[in-house]
Amino acid sequence: MAGSTFGKCFTVTTWGESHGPALGAVVDGCPAGLPLCEADIQYYLDRRRPGQTAISTPRKEADQVRILSGVFEGRTTGTPISLIVENTSHKSGDYQQIASCYRPGHADYTFDQKYGLRDYRGGGRSSGRETIGRVAAGAIALKLLKELGITFCAYTKSIGPVKTSDTVFDKDAIRKTPTAMPDYEASRQAEAYLQSCMAQKDSAGGVIECRIDGIPAGIGEPVFDKLDASLGKAILSIGAVKAVEIGDGCRTALAKGSENNDAFVSRCGRITKKTNHAGGILGGISDGSAVLLRAYIKPTPSIFQKQDTVSQDGENITIAIEGRHDPVIVPRAVVVVEAMAALAVTDLLFENMHARMENIISFYRK
Amino acid sequence: MAGSTFGKCFTVTTWGESHGPALGAVVDGCPAGLPLCEADIQYYLDRRRPGQTAISTPRKEADQVRILSGVFEGRTTGTPISLIVENTSHKSGDYQQIASCYRPGHADYTFDQKYGLRDYRGGGRSSGRETIGRVAAGAIALKLLKELGITFCAYTKSIGPVKTSDTVFDKDAIRKTPTAMPDYEASRQAEAYLQSCMAQKDSAGGVIECRIDGIPAGIGEPVFDKLDASLGKAILSIGAVKAVEIGDGCRTALAKGSENNDAFVSRCGRITKKTNHAGGILGGISDGSAVLLRAYIKPTPSIFQKQDTVSQDGENITIAIEGRHDPVIVPRAVVVVEAMAALAVTDLLFENMHARMENIISFYRK
Amino acid sequence: MAGSTFGKCFTVTTWGESHGPALGAVVDGCPAGLPLCEADIQYYLDRRRPGQTAISTPRKEADQVRILSGVFEGRTTGTPISLIVENTSHKSGDYQQIASCYRPGHADYTFDQKYGLRDYRGGGRSSGRETIGRVAAGAIALKLLKELGITFCAYTKSIGPVKTSDTVFDKDAIRKTPTAMPDYEASRQAEAYLQSCMAQKDSAGGVIECRIDGIPAGIGEPVFDKLDASLGKAILSIGAVKAVEIGDGCRTALAKGSENNDAFVSRCGRITKKTNHAGGILGGISDGSAVLLRAYIKPTPSIFQKQDTVSQDGENITIAIEGRHDPVIVPRAVVVVEAMAALAVTDLLFENMHARMENIISFYRK
Amino acid sequence: MAGSTFGKCFTVTTWGESHGPALGAVVDGCPAGLPLCEADIQYYLDRRRPGQTAISTPRKEADQVRILSGVFEGRTTGTPISLIVENTSHKSGDYQQIASCYRPGHADYTFDQKYGLRDYRGGGRSSGRETIGRVAAGAIALKLLKELGITFCAYTKSIGPVKTSDTVFDKDAIRKTPTAMPDYEASRQAEAYLQSCMAQKDSAGGVIECRIDGIPAGIGEPVFDKLDASLGKAILSIGAVKAVEIGDGCRTALAKGSENNDAFVSRCGRITKKTNHAGGILGGISDGSAVLLRAYIKPTPSIFQKQDTVSQDGENITIAIEGRHDPVIVPRAVVVVEAMAALAVTDLLFENMHARMENIISFYRK
Repeated sequence: MAGSTFGKCFTVTTWGESHGPALGAVVDGCPAGLPLCEADIQYYLDRRRPGQTAISTPRKEADQVRILSGVFEGRTTGTPISLIVENTSHKSGDYQQIASCYRPGHADYTFDQKYGLRDYRGGGRSSGRETIGRVAAGAIALKLLKELGITFCAYTKSIGPVKTSDTVFDKDAIRKTPTAMPDYEASRQAEAYLQSCMAQKDSAGGVIECRIDGIPAGIGEPVFDKLDASLGKAILSIGAVKAVEIGDGCRTALAKGSENNDAFVSRCGRITKKTNHAGGILGGISDGSAVLLRAYIKPTPSIFQKQDTVSQDGENITIAIEGRHDPVIVPRAVVVVEAMAALAVTDLLFENMHARMENIISFYRK
Repeated sequence: MAGSTFGKCFTVTTWGESHGPALGAVVDGCPAGLPLCEADIQYYLDRRRPGQTAISTPRKEADQVRILSGVFEGRTTGTPISLIVENTSHKSGDYQQIASCYRPGHADYTFDQKYGLRDYRGGGRSSGRETIGRVAAGAIALKLLKELGITFCAYTKSIGPVKTSDTVFDKDAIRKTPTAMPDYEASRQAEAYLQSCMAQKDSAGGVIECRIDGIPAGIGEPVFDKLDASLGKAILSIGAVKAVEIGDGCRTALAKGSENNDAFVSRCGRITKKTNHAGGILGGISDGSAVLLRAYIKPTPSIFQKQDTVSQDGENITIAIEGRHDPVIVPRAVVVVEAMAALAVTDLLFENMHARMENIISFYRK
Repeated sequence: MAGSTFGKCFTVTTWGESHGPALGAVVDGCPAGLPLCEADIQYYLDRRRPGQTAISTPRKEADQVRILSGVFEGRTTGTPISLIVENTSHKSGDYQQIASCYRPGHADYTFDQKYGLRDYRGGGRSSGRETIGRVAAGAIALKLLKELGITFCAYTKSIGPVKTSDTVFDKDAIRKTPTAMPDYEASRQAEAYLQSCMAQKDSAGGVIECRIDGIPAGIGEPVFDKLDASLGKAILSIGAVKAVEIGDGCRTALAKGSENNDAFVSRCGRITKKTNHAGGILGGISDGSAVLLRAYIKPTPSIFQKQDTVSQDGENITIAIEGRHDPVIVPRAVVVVEAMAALAVTDLLFENMHARMENIISFYRK
Repeated sequence: MAGSTFGKCFTVTTWGESHGPALGAVVDGCPAGLPLCEADIQYYLDRRRPGQTAISTPRKEADQVRILSGVFEGRTTGTPISLIVENTSHKSGDYQQIASCYRPGHADYTFDQKYGLRDYRGGGRSSGRETIGRVAAGAIALKLLKELGITFCAYTKSIGPVKTSDTVFDKDAIRKTPTAMPDYEASRQAEAYLQSCMAQKDSAGGVIECRIDGIPAGIGEPVFDKLDASLGKAILSIGAVKAVEIGDGCRTALAKGSENNDAFVSRCGRITKKTNHAGGILGGISDGSAVLLRAYIKPTPSIFQKQDTVSQDGENITIAIEGRHDPVIVPRAVVVVEAMAALAVTDLLFENMHARMENIISFYRK
């Protein structure tokens, strides 16, 4: 099944396994005339790389992207854009252990159940490296949307029990802290928490929040391709994500209507809202306010503690995972959340262009 | 944009406005040979009808479904199944007020922004009556899946601050309480809470939990049409849903890997898991355990309190909504959650059939 | 499988069997603001009705369409448009014969092979009445395109060996002759040919030509959703069509490059072509010239002569088909060709709107 | 728009320009467990290479394919298969001429109209080299279908006025003649014809016929994704194809029903047909007979004669194309027709698996 393509108008098809020669993506439906070069994409890929901080394992992953098609003289041509990142850093020997058992919390078992076989080296297609294609493609969407004044800002909201402040928001800290938190103090606490997890040979989860500014009102296609539903699918498709919130999310279930409704107000001839509990989406369509969403990420399944599991032959065994594993994946997933959100928004922005007869008429009468 | 079609192999296209002549759905891709009659569908439609309890408003909505195609001599033919429910109960006069303003929390504003006009009678396409098509189509999926031993059980987990017990689960209570809770005591408390909301001319939200049993391992199409991502999209597309959880959902962000991983264990030659924090899905593919998900629903936007808003001309005004509105929609949405989950599962069950060459070979060598 | 939906942006889902209660279609993705009423659609449905001429059988098929959703105060709302035509004229008794055998040239056998059962009354879903949904939906596309200055003119080019003149083109004759030919003289000859076919208890085929004017250059999505490929699929999906030509079609295989190339020429500052062998499409994209296509239609399979065939039990038998059958379906298929072509063009017109970054920027900076 | 993806269950996304670094394709939905290696694909790619005969120009195109993902230990894993062919043979200088004008018969003009710019080196995305991705992906489909006993045989039926014999069919000749004709004598005549075309600085077209054996009855998804409609779209999407025939194709328009109907007959307990005018497809579904189709290909637009055209600035000019061009592309397109047909058939074969409830039940009760 074609489960590896996302989108209808602006589509991405990703491919590649953690231990294959390369990974990549093909972006189709990108309009012609967008300035694009490898540096535009590399910027985002670099944000997902480990081995740079105290809380990530020192794996050297160069992950340099090359653009193989769809760009000419510095601009997109409207034809499919093929992106490739060669795998340069892995040792097959690292992962031989898992060929013979099903690691808890990983997709080894389910891939075997589905396909009858699996590439047991690393996680194969279920490896975190699969996000390389998503981020590379998302980088193009992010650039395109920026041209339209639409910007994305994702960051770590919490790691384990450590939350960022609701009053302090330090944008610089997102790129400077190893936790990708917009709060230096919270980051220090989170790092301490992670050190203790590592000492226990354990791992942690966390929450990523993403704010999208500049989406014009009217984006989203009821009733099934609503903006929130499409964003939700995009985010839930990221490995390890176990919940998605839009706006106030889970808290809305506790609120009363008088508390949750966002009152409209007209200021200087523009209609806006007094509050934004809705997170910028009403009836599945953007209302012009900031879109807010949250992704809840489970703790990294690969821990060094002993775990009970079964071998591929069905015997009960105990394993202790080896190799290189981060105690938390949340900071690395921040750019993936931005990328996936951007892909969903771009797709719906294009679909919206034929929502009104008057726009189609003026488009074709030019 | 074709936002009104859900699915790839087993698809549903819904149509209809709250104040049009009728609503309905077309189901395509349903296999031939499934016994099907109107009663099979009516059973589920009846579960979404208001006017039967103290906490819902007495609106008479007969909502009788007719099957117009795709069934012959009591069985599906494999051709598209057209379902229609005539609108028999509404008075245009009820909703004239909203023609001239944007109700807070409703999609009036966003539909106007998107389309430049809207059917202001009731919510038009954004009305809760739009779920009629979903439930009618979902009923077919539910029947089909039952033939495969896959069953769905959704219920209200909480309304406002009132939660059902974690230890008591009374399945009968789901159909007998006006709250659709599996807990008579919690239901009484919830009803009291809702009475107080109504007295305050306010509304409440809540949480719906859905448990799916019997999904074989291997269902879901990585990386974008994963089972959790597809379920998430299906659920988030339901009006008023602001968050979705899979398995332990938001709680996973607080857990450690040693707590969250589900250990595999072999019992009597079958591989199963000791726990199910994952909610039955690993790497986006079902693992054979029960699938658990949760939908968080915001409080009904239509409240009788005065609210600030703007008129369609952009003037700041105050309104007090009139008409017939429930203080909570959660109990009515329970069957919608089952229906949407069933549609997502059916679609992926079909897609999975060509996951392995050996299965295709044996299928076509019969 | 969802084989009953056509299109990506502007989609149509048709449903209904010849002997069910009704047939219809749901159009999704139609922009808001298009003036639309039942008469707009009825005009096209009336063009497919038999029983009005000497060469068609006197079946009374009222085929009155109703619009059930998606239109408000005379304009489309942007929400799905549900169209329904009740089946009012059939007698189950007419078709009992075919329940027990496989008629040559019909889909009885293949539907049985695919689904294991079939609605044997009439052709069920494979009946020519299935085109009702296509034409009703196509009528909306035709109206929409007309607003953009794009017009369709389809007509019978030949019936059996009788061809219309290459020099005479009488547009009025299309609607006035029973053959839908733009040539009264050829029509008389064709009618004579058909009378002789009827006398022999036989049937005839023919060719429909369709000319589309006003498509701007640039429409079509290489490399798989090219304009010619999409038109071809649309036309070949019509029952009884066995070949499709674009422009000079089959004749191009005999031509030399110097004869077949259309030279570009600049006249009054506009680029146009000296000839149009290409039929208005180059590289799968419209070039601004008239688009020309042809559909080749096999003779009606239902003939009154004795035919060898097999019974459903696999016995060799001879049958003589009874009931009401036209000796030729070509004149009735003319409006179906227009409808399908319009659906394909509309879909690609919408997709083209995001082909250039500059257009997207100006669209969203309004 | 995502026009570069073909299929729903078994999908192909192609990418690459004639003068970019590489071309390729991503195949998604391929089942796991199919033995696959680069040689399987190279075999088909080699069949599209020029420079080997007297009637093709000596361009060195190594076109070696590499498999970058989706295969492990010699078998497909069920994950996306990325195929890449590096461009090793081109000189930018060859094509500078066309940067400034619109070549007749080529897509220069239409790509400019659509995108506002184009990669003018060679044909860019509209170059014949774009078929590399199609053939590479089609090779996988061909291998898969062979495992199911479904085989494809395409060949040149005619070049210009020279047709192959209706009585002689020499399968070896297809691979041994430079024309890919199954008739040595006709090939000699065709080569002579082409020599005369070359002497005139002109080009020729032709017809490719493709026969598919072994498709079980029941394949195809009415009413829009019929087998013939899907094959037609696949074939018409190939550059230079201007017509498609199924079975007797255009000739059916001249036949009578008694001549065109294929009588069913029961032999040894199996139902078959006495004739096959239908080309193996009835009601859009395969009937178990051989599927026959024909693609009509226009003469190569690049001829060395002087041609009138316009410059990119809109001035009327005369050009004489330089560079390396074959006088006919038909022999090279034979493998492309097989590839595209195989992609269409594979996709529909997968979709058919859920046509009957009984099959789904037995599939999931294993």
